[in-house]
Amino acid sequence: MSDPLVLFMPSGKRGRFARGTTVLEAARQLGVYVESVCGGRATCGRCQIEVQEGHFAKHKIVSSNDHISPKGAKEERYERVRGLPAGRRLSCSATIEGDLVVDVPQDVVINAQVVRKKASDRVIARNPAIRLCYVEVDEPDMHAPLGDLDRLRVALQRDWRYDRLDIDFALVGQVQAILRAGKWAVTAAIHKDRDDGPATIVALWPGLHNEAFGIACDIGSTTIAMHLVSLLSGRIAASAGAQNPQIRFGEDLMSRVSYVMMNPDGREAMTVAVRQAVNGLVDKVCAEAGAERTDILDGVFVGNPVMHHLFLGIDPTELGGAPFALAASGALAFKASEIGIAANPGARVYVLPCIAGHVGADAAAATLSEGPYRQDRMMLLVDVGTNAEIVLGNAARTVACSSPTGPAFEGAEISGGQRAAPGAIERVRIDPATLEPRFRIIGVEPWSDEPGFAEAMAAVGVTGICGSGIIEIIAGMYLAGIISEDGVIDGSLAARSPRIVENGRTFSYLLREDGPRIAVTQNDVRAIQLAKAALYAGVKLLMQKQGVSEVDTIRFAGAFGSFIDPKYAMVLGLIPDCDLAEVKAVGNAAGDGALMALLNRDHRREIEDTVRRIEKIETALEPDFQQLFVNAMALPNKADPFPKLASQVTLPPRKALAEGESGGRRGGRRR
Amino acid sequence: MSDPLVLFMPSGKRGRFARGTTVLEAARQLGVYVESVCGGRATCGRCQIEVQEGHFAKHKIVSSNDHISPKGAKEERYERVRGLPAGRRLSCSATIEGDLVVDVPQDVVINAQVVRKKASDRVIARNPAIRLCYVEVDEPDMHAPLGDLDRLRVALQRDWRYDRLDIDFALVGQVQAILRAGKWAVTAAIHKDRDDGPATIVALWPGLHNEAFGIACDIGSTTIAMHLVSLLSGRIAASAGAQNPQIRFGEDLMSRVSYVMMNPDGREAMTVAVRQAVNGLVDKVCAEAGAERTDILDGVFVGNPVMHHLFLGIDPTELGGAPFALAASGALAFKASEIGIAANPGARVYVLPCIAGHVGADAAAATLSEGPYRQDRMMLLVDVGTNAEIVLGNAARTVACSSPTGPAFEGAEISGGQRAAPGAIERVRIDPATLEPRFRIIGVEPWSDEPGFAEAMAAVGVTGICGSGIIEIIAGMYLAGIISEDGVIDGSLAARSPRIVENGRTFSYLLREDGPRIAVTQNDVRAIQLAKAALYAGVKLLMQKQGVSEVDTIRFAGAFGSFIDPKYAMVLGLIPDCDLAEVKAVGNAAGDGALMALLNRDHRREIEDTVRRIEKIETALEPDFQQLFVNAMALPNKADPFPKLASQVTLPPRKALAEGESGGRRGGRRR
Repeated sequence: MSDPLVLFMPSGKRGRFARGTTVLEAARQLGVYVESVCGGRATCGRCQIEVQEGHFAKHKIVSSNDHISPKGAKEERYERVRGLPAGRRLSCSATIEGDLVVDVPQDVVINAQVVRKKASDRVIARNPAIRLCYVEVDEPDMHAPLGDLDRLRVALQRDWRYDRLDIDFALVGQVQAILRAGKWAVTAAIHKDRDDGPATIVALWPGLHNEAFGIACDIGSTTIAMHLVSLLSGRIAASAGAQNPQIRFGEDLMSRVSYVMMNPDGREAMTVAVRQAVNGLVDKVCAEAGAERTDILDGVFVGNPVMHHLFLGIDPTELGGAPFALAASGALAFKASEIGIAANPGARVYVLPCIAGHVGADAAAATLSEGPYRQDRMMLLVDVGTNAEIVLGNAARTVACSSPTGPAFEGAEISGGQRAAPGAIERVRIDPATLEPRFRIIGVEPWSDEPGFAEAMAAVGVTGICGSGIIEIIAGMYLAGIISEDGVIDGSLAARSPRIVENGRTFSYLLREDGPRIAVTQNDVRAIQLAKAALYAGVKLLMQKQGVSEVDTIRFAGAFGSFIDPKYAMVLGLIPDCDLAEVKAVGNAAGDGALMALLNRDHRREIEDTVRRIEKIETALEPDFQQLFVNAMALPNKADPFPKLASQVTLPPRKALAEGESGGRRGGRRR
Repeated sequence: MSDPLVLFMPSGKRGRFARGTTVLEAARQLGVYVESVCGGRATCGRCQIEVQEGHFAKHKIVSSNDHISPKGAKEERYERVRGLPAGRRLSCSATIEGDLVVDVPQDVVINAQVVRKKASDRVIARNPAIRLCYVEVDEPDMHAPLGDLDRLRVALQRDWRYDRLDIDFALVGQVQAILRAGKWAVTAAIHKDRDDGPATIVALWPGLHNEAFGIACDIGSTTIAMHLVSLLSGRIAASAGAQNPQIRFGEDLMSRVSYVMMNPDGREAMTVAVRQAVNGLVDKVCAEAGAERTDILDGVFVGNPVMHHLFLGIDPTELGGAPFALAASGALAFKASEIGIAANPGARVYVLPCIAGHVGADAAAATLSEGPYRQDRMMLLVDVGTNAEIVLGNAARTVACSSPTGPAFEGAEISGGQRAAPGAIERVRIDPATLEPRFRIIGVEPWSDEPGFAEAMAAVGVTGICGSGIIEIIAGMYLAGIISEDGVIDGSLAARSPRIVENGRTFSYLLREDGPRIAVTQNDVRAIQLAKAALYAGVKLLMQKQGVSEVDTIRFAGAFGSFIDPKYAMVLGLIPDCDLAEVKAVGNAAGDGALMALLNRDHRREIEDTVRRIEKIETALEPDFQQLFVNAMALPNKADPFPKLASQVTLPPRKALAEGESGGRRGGRRR
């Protein structure tokens, strides 16, 4: 009779094991990550699994709860004292007695992997850089006068196979008291970021300590977003966001860099501000989750290069002009206390690498999250901010650049523009026959022509147009024939509609007159054309580098991408022609990438390698960029057909675009 | 024609190299340590060598300055600008053109090895944990947007073969400015403590930085001694000592432990005090050497277990009672800033391992310095303080213990005792015929019966007897027949000499009546007997463990050992019988060991391995210790013959020692 076959789900890893082997041991041997803090003593409850019952024909296994040992005394004690959900077993106690299909549960309390029901539907295996290890340490012995710390090391070597353990100096003086408080049983937090790197004792608690958290944080120019995650279960315990307080020093990146250049203590002030905000968010997520700051042992931070530098206390001035030299581009690792993050005193921090001077750790994190390099189709990943960060690639090759879109997409430089906030127009439709608009504002459910709008709107007012509204209104104006493909507002329509009004030598489209007057001017159209041309030219440049004339799939990362309708973005020519079903908003992909790097240290190596291999394109150095930019001024584009878009949307007939209307040089501009 | 043969002295390493190979490259290939900061650019001058001229028959080499290339432009420029001593060459520029005997000079300015003209006459090869590495870093390039730090890493990998370099976080924000200040040429200090361990950039200077210092420090209960050493040449730039300010909290170790137990902030106060004293010494050695604190990049500290703990900020209470548990026994490494040592912010610290609860890092350092385990003869290494730390061994096996000698050897618990200071009697001779003493006091050149004594003595007075004086006077009393081998002062001699005076039920030997009355009482003799019995019993226990009846050589480490006469120590029976020529005082062997660990990281591994292998004997647990102690009360000893001593000194005839005179149990006493 051969040894029983055991199949672990969802990883699909399988192997044969002698009867009597614990399920935990089998998982370890197969490299299936099953958490365990107590080291098999049936006290931490972190190693729970479920047996799937039935005949799994595909795998040629008949699995049954009869094929696992009955609960022993220790497991029954755990169930009695701590409770065990129905069907759950402690894998450190349950032994293999026949063929088994074992499920490593993905639930919020105990799981080994985080399932992200997102664009990619990928499963993230966990392998955090921090592990909690419970040990029972030998008592002092005059015959073998090893120190307390040294006997702790012996125990960690014996039970957890850590061969050469460093220790944070701050703990050296505490080991003595903690060992005695725990009656020689303690839980050590071990930081080990790479298989061939050092392992360090970074925290120590008396007795069994059964929780450890990490924070994943995306520091944006406008907002800072943070997740608090259990490193032991992968569960997101709390999430919070806050405005980046650096906004008071300057709205956009370049104005913050200028602030540093003009104020001797400007860098320090902004560093202090962002760190305070991060600490505020730590307070917030801890309060929400009922967690202790001292249980936070790891953190991953991402941000664009200027945010990255200011957060780390590095002068960003060099990023303000060519050659846009990063002070540090590679991943960085250090202690949270070194940047004033109040967590466990031994907590570690990891910062993802930056790709280039304008393509930051946030873009690297989004790349890690969406993984163009992990699949074969040509994926375009775009994160639109003041600079658009653009990544294009597949498993064979990945290229990246940034393009100076300026702040128009964020509502700046637009006459009626504003940040996305209640009262801002976010969606717009224009009737091609009457040229009348209908719209929706943030914070109000009904559209402007639906019942109840006036009442609901009264509370917030209509205050302006946010980025997604601007995309839709200008795309709508184009589809309604109000503006030509070269972006000129057709003044002759003033005869047909009171919405078209003269405004000096050009015309405007009047959206609303009740309350603050909101109109789209010829200048507004030009600003959006410039912004979208910069983005499209960047995309096109990368497509040239890749030698492709179309992309298979498009991912919009970031807040901007979450609100715009892909159809209008494509009508406007922000993005290249593509099957609209393949254009997806992926939300805070940078935050997701940070989370991945937090939960699995292998993802750190993965993105470090990927960033090294990404070909970095500097648009300012590319002779073709100017022409691509000029071509991209047209709606949707002068040079490229949009056959896939045209098959889904009725586009106005194409006309020639006058060269003189291109809006001048923009390639060198950085905002 | 075969390749030229090159022999390096003093290491004796040799090999054949193609003509045109630089001498530095040949040294590297043979593993001969020749310093170089500039990496072969002929600017730092650290790689100087000399060619020995002549026919070296033993090595079959005819060496000549004609066999080395003439000075090239770079070397001539260095000579012109910086100067080059006659006969010296820069090994990075001079190439091998024929057979050579190359001397790596040992002088104070530029050398590769430190010769210690001491007991062992050993040569310490240098291989410090800190290296200075000059590099020229690529300027920023938009086509390859690596960060400043990352290009620095590339340069250090390219020129110095550091593959994966960490960096102290505090430097991350400074790299940018330092690279620009140095016009892309910088010197990095790299800390790498073990071949298979991490390498870290700990300091960075613009341009060529051509000096790095380390401190070696022995923290004694009474005094703290420090050397400032150039890590680039091995030269001791300055040495200084200071009283340990913890004395104000308690004279001896146990009283300091008691102070901690009785005062809530006692530990902190003593930690602050000793660190302040160490910082004071750093100031002193820097001032003496004209060195900058920021050039101090490494430090090695040793001390007995209580000093070790207090210096590191660890509560020493556990060391005050069985099982005498050390908080940490293994070697420790951390940053100097973590213990408040004001050196370069990136400076590192290494603390040698402790051997056992009463055998500290100072004993480990003395063991490293004297190296019983490096030779075949049975070496006894004794460091006498309040506890005697005793190591006995050879290459095959080493054992160690401590023995509670108490403070009698330091002049405490002795009626006329005092610390070694001007006015203290340090040497004594007693005429066997007249029983009259002659003596010498510290600070006065003539003996008491020599011309000029009275005048010279008047300035200081005769204030008491120090440790070495006590040894000599009691040994002298024994040799003169004043005390029996069982330690009883013979009252019948009062009839013969006014020096023997009645003192209640016992007698005293009156040494001096002018000024303060100084006498040796029966209690004083008993106190010394107890102390010496503890020491001898410890030695004897280790000899039993080794299965030897005699030792080949004896090393007295520490201040006490430096002043006593081995003959009288042996007459008294402090140490076992041995050829007196083989008994040597080795001074501050602990400080020497610290120096070795500072200059060569391999010595750190050596002593860590040695300490692991040393068999630790706890006298309190040894059933034989009591009997050995009782036997050792006699002068020189009840159980052992001293044939080698007897052949060099006329000892009184032996008598039986009454068991009842043994002085009671002492084994458990710890001071």
